[in-house]
Amino acid sequence: MRNIQLIVAYDGTNYHGFQRQHETHGPTIQGTLEEVWARLVEEEVTLATAGRTDTGVHASGQVVNFMTLTRIPEGKIPKAFNSLLPRDIRILRAKCVPDDFNARWSAKWKRYDYQIDNHPIPDVFKRLYAHHVPVPLNVAQMQVAASLLEGRHNFKTFAAAGGASKTFERTLYRCKVKEEDGLITVSCVGDGFLYHMVRILVGTLMDVGKGRISAQEIPDIIASHERKRARMIAPAKGLNLVHVNYTEESPFEVFPGLL
Amino acid sequence: MRNIQLIVAYDGTNYHGFQRQHETHGPTIQGTLEEVWARLVEEEVTLATAGRTDTGVHASGQVVNFMTLTRIPEGKIPKAFNSLLPRDIRILRAKCVPDDFNARWSAKWKRYDYQIDNHPIPDVFKRLYAHHVPVPLNVAQMQVAASLLEGRHNFKTFAAAGGASKTFERTLYRCKVKEEDGLITVSCVGDGFLYHMVRILVGTLMDVGKGRISAQEIPDIIASHERKRARMIAPAKGLNLVHVNYTEESPFEVFPGLL
Repeated sequence: MRNIQLIVAYDGTNYHGFQRQHETHGPTIQGTLEEVWARLVEEEVTLATAGRTDTGVHASGQVVNFMTLTRIPEGKIPKAFNSLLPRDIRILRAKCVPDDFNARWSAKWKRYDYQIDNHPIPDVFKRLYAHHVPVPLNVAQMQVAASLLEGRHNFKTFAAAGGASKTFERTLYRCKVKEEDGLITVSCVGDGFLYHMVRILVGTLMDVGKGRISAQEIPDIIASHERKRARMIAPAKGLNLVHVNYTEESPFEVFPGLL
Repeated sequence: MRNIQLIVAYDGTNYHGFQRQHETHGPTIQGTLEEVWARLVEEEVTLATAGRTDTGVHASGQVVNFMTLTRIPEGKIPKAFNSLLPRDIRILRAKCVPDDFNARWSAKWKRYDYQIDNHPIPDVFKRLYAHHVPVPLNVAQMQVAASLLEGRHNFKTFAAAGGASKTFERTLYRCKVKEEDGLITVSCVGDGFLYHMVRILVGTLMDVGKGRISAQEIPDIIASHERKRARMIAPAKGLNLVHVNYTEESPFEVFPGLL
């Protein structure tokens, strides 16, 4: 048996999230990958994944792994997959990893980016990849708030009901807000994220940007552990799982631009 | 009667080009805009347009104009249109212009950008907006070739059959190739473009990038006036009509980055 790791990019617009569903809601990323593998080599596999992205969420660096009995060389796996996958899913790389590697449990940290289109009229080319906010957001205040979210905290305030996590302590290594030509990107790097946590963090930052809450309230909001203090959840389509890290490298070694 | 000018952005993926068709091939940008105006104010208008983009071609700065008897203030026109338009078409601005303004005939120059995704595996988020070329293109040689295309020439070599133009003399003020993170953008600025001219220029530049023809052959290729010397036409989805200019400003005043 070999353990194969895949790096996967996908446009989540037309998928009912990553995870294969028992009932038929529509296609999923996991279901599509498993079906294509079965067509390629007539082998049923079950993928483990670093992040079970929700309906409409995108990935440019999702990581999955699966055990296989086949002998297809790792270098040929991306091309084989891509020849049968729909064009909105691409395998970027494949490699053999140790048997104890698990895409979810072996991850050290992850990076998610959230895009906000802050033009008065939405950019047609970003309509599937960014949440449109027509009122001008105060980016400087969002940056102050973002820096106050960083660190090791109990993030219960920012966890949606329905998550499986029993502990709420997580380390947010970086929460960076940048703006370029009307497109605001919120980058969140952490050792783990609670259910809907990134989208709730972004919803809170947008409220800061609109002046509904002040950046200085962030420490109190974190300490409250009350979901209702964190306001709205940002829509799925703005979210992208950029990278999952399995080495000892720090986020700032891998992404110097985040400093 | 007022003459109204609109700046229009659209994702051309789902449209059968700009121009309204007599037979029903599928929706067009012109047909959609005219139908929405008719629903808004019960008035039939015929749009004039700066560039009749082909099926699948995009625009971030298309310009159209039409005569209207209505008194709806120009400032309210974008919001009215956008409330009824599909999300892949947006009106960015509307203003009253002199009666003799015509979006096509009054244009001084236009800018088209063509995007080439030069990653070995296509970027899923660019799949509708860039042509994918998996083999690494020689960007430096494409830049030499592009500079040799600039100037006032008879561009008959680069005109597809079926165009309505009787003269082939055009001025290409700028043909700039730049590369950033594997995405190559070819920007073409000229006083007018023949039928499919930008896509044939880009097809020729891609052949230079692949080493199939040398940059030094470009002057001969221009002078030949033979369509077959110009090789393939680049696919529609990489093309974007960025800007149409109606003032005396030069392209380099409007886009200093093109210098």
